[in-house]
Amino acid sequence: MRYLITGAAGFVAGHLIEHIFRTDSEAAITCLDLAEPDYSFLDGKMHDSISLIKTDLLSMSDLLKTLESARPRFIIHLASFSSVAYSWQHPIESFMNNSNIFLNLLDAVKAVDPCIRVLSVGSSEQYGIITPEMIPLRETAPQNPASPYAVARVAQEQMGAVFAHGFKLDIVSTRSFNHFGPRQTERFVLSGLARQVAQIKKGRQEPVIRAGDIRIIRDFIDVRDVVKAYLLLLRKGTSGEVYNVCSGTGRTIAECLDTLMRIADIRCEIRKSDSLVRPVDNPVIVGDNGKIHAWTGWLPKISFESGLADLFEYWMRRL
Amino acid sequence: MRYLITGAAGFVAGHLIEHIFRTDSEAAITCLDLAEPDYSFLDGKMHDSISLIKTDLLSMSDLLKTLESARPRFIIHLASFSSVAYSWQHPIESFMNNSNIFLNLLDAVKAVDPCIRVLSVGSSEQYGIITPEMIPLRETAPQNPASPYAVARVAQEQMGAVFAHGFKLDIVSTRSFNHFGPRQTERFVLSGLARQVAQIKKGRQEPVIRAGDIRIIRDFIDVRDVVKAYLLLLRKGTSGEVYNVCSGTGRTIAECLDTLMRIADIRCEIRKSDSLVRPVDNPVIVGDNGKIHAWTGWLPKISFESGLADLFEYWMRRL
Repeated sequence: MRYLITGAAGFVAGHLIEHIFRTDSEAAITCLDLAEPDYSFLDGKMHDSISLIKTDLLSMSDLLKTLESARPRFIIHLASFSSVAYSWQHPIESFMNNSNIFLNLLDAVKAVDPCIRVLSVGSSEQYGIITPEMIPLRETAPQNPASPYAVARVAQEQMGAVFAHGFKLDIVSTRSFNHFGPRQTERFVLSGLARQVAQIKKGRQEPVIRAGDIRIIRDFIDVRDVVKAYLLLLRKGTSGEVYNVCSGTGRTIAECLDTLMRIADIRCEIRKSDSLVRPVDNPVIVGDNGKIHAWTGWLPKISFESGLADLFEYWMRRL
Repeated sequence: MRYLITGAAGFVAGHLIEHIFRTDSEAAITCLDLAEPDYSFLDGKMHDSISLIKTDLLSMSDLLKTLESARPRFIIHLASFSSVAYSWQHPIESFMNNSNIFLNLLDAVKAVDPCIRVLSVGSSEQYGIITPEMIPLRETAPQNPASPYAVARVAQEQMGAVFAHGFKLDIVSTRSFNHFGPRQTERFVLSGLARQVAQIKKGRQEPVIRAGDIRIIRDFIDVRDVVKAYLLLLRKGTSGEVYNVCSGTGRTIAECLDTLMRIADIRCEIRKSDSLVRPVDNPVIVGDNGKIHAWTGWLPKISFESGLADLFEYWMRRL
């Protein structure tokens, strides 16, 4: 099968590529990004089945040329300026690199081959300001986006639905919750904490962990379960529909830290770092994964503890 | 007071300018548009208080320069590619000339003078797919945009709310329902029908009116009431909030046609024209104007019949 992945240099894309090759020995993957990906974790045979194309998704002519030559059956749209913080600093760039690039992609798909199935990856940030009785969040919950990034993601999803219904394009959307796993940069909370714990374990840092607000509750899911959900949605999702991709379980950051310290077999002091506390943040974000389970049979398989252990091991090897 | 109006060559802008001059003898108005406006209906003194600036709202440098020189207290953002049909044909252009231009405007306001109060004009199209029990539509109703245009308008409003809350900009939003009045182009339903009735009255057309689906129910409001609402919202609206601008009364197109024929004192046959029927359309769109009334005291003053008579008289003079 022919796949095309946007944002192919990113953390999720790496795991997605591995999973595609594990499950489809005939896979040919076109990888789009402006950044140079590091695929050193892939074996030689896999490299032969990958074509890298530097494509600016803001350029329709680039995009049309790329689609014409790649002729994919599936597109997994991972490209995104996905930082909420960046979107506050650069709202225009954030908007263009979320909403506009996706609209360009849809218009190009419509022109080149309307039968291509597109997976539009969105974010739990779309729910925005929520009240406790909305937890766990179902896809029918209202969206009250609270950052420029979240507004851009809502527009992306709504445009996907409009193109699916109005132009009969084949588009499945997700709202993906916090994911984590090996190779994730330390800018993300669990990876940053796992890195600190690994540093301490190696004796390179005093036994003090700097963290933001450790009372907030999030729905963390292993990236390797996430990419399985994406491939199942490509096979079994309904066009024009949106699916939460989440574990369904809420954990405080404090609990995550406890688990990490148990894995590493160390104890540390936890010190609040104001620079890691967001000005506005939801105390609780937990999703309901009943819809994707009912439609595709998907459920997360990797336990939180073993996923976190893998992330810790990654940092132990890496540092 | 210093005002800046985007989309200043449009139908609503003309009525807004007249109303501003009627109520504020000190008004100075900067009019932004790429098209050349026809202000022949304004008197000479008014012309002296207007500056016209051709500004491309997609160009940040243009926008910054214009704001720096105009230094308005109020911005009324009327600029929009407001055709639903166009948005299906040219979704990218429609999106950019609704969502992106507004985001550019906000970012420019933030840079030049965050105290400028901005009125963001939106559309009842944002409600999209609705169910009968949601009528009359309140601002709390969910938004299910059903066209590329509607998606772009939702993004505009949500970005306004995010900038109001996150950057403390001063932004009031509307969802404006179908408006009509003198000088409206015949592409809009009531103006098109009034023009046909005037043609028939003048004996230039056989007594047959071509119309789309005359059973659909809409909430029509006179543009002169609309612009009063806009100025009241600038004075009394709450930043970050959205207000329906509507009559609160639903009328079938058939009723509107009856009223028009009574005004013109003619009877005609009504013939369905498939080219005027939209592929997907809501049978009923009626808004609730309780919120704007409670906040600003605004209520529509011009009766439907007398507004329609003015529109008919306009076409009688014009043809």
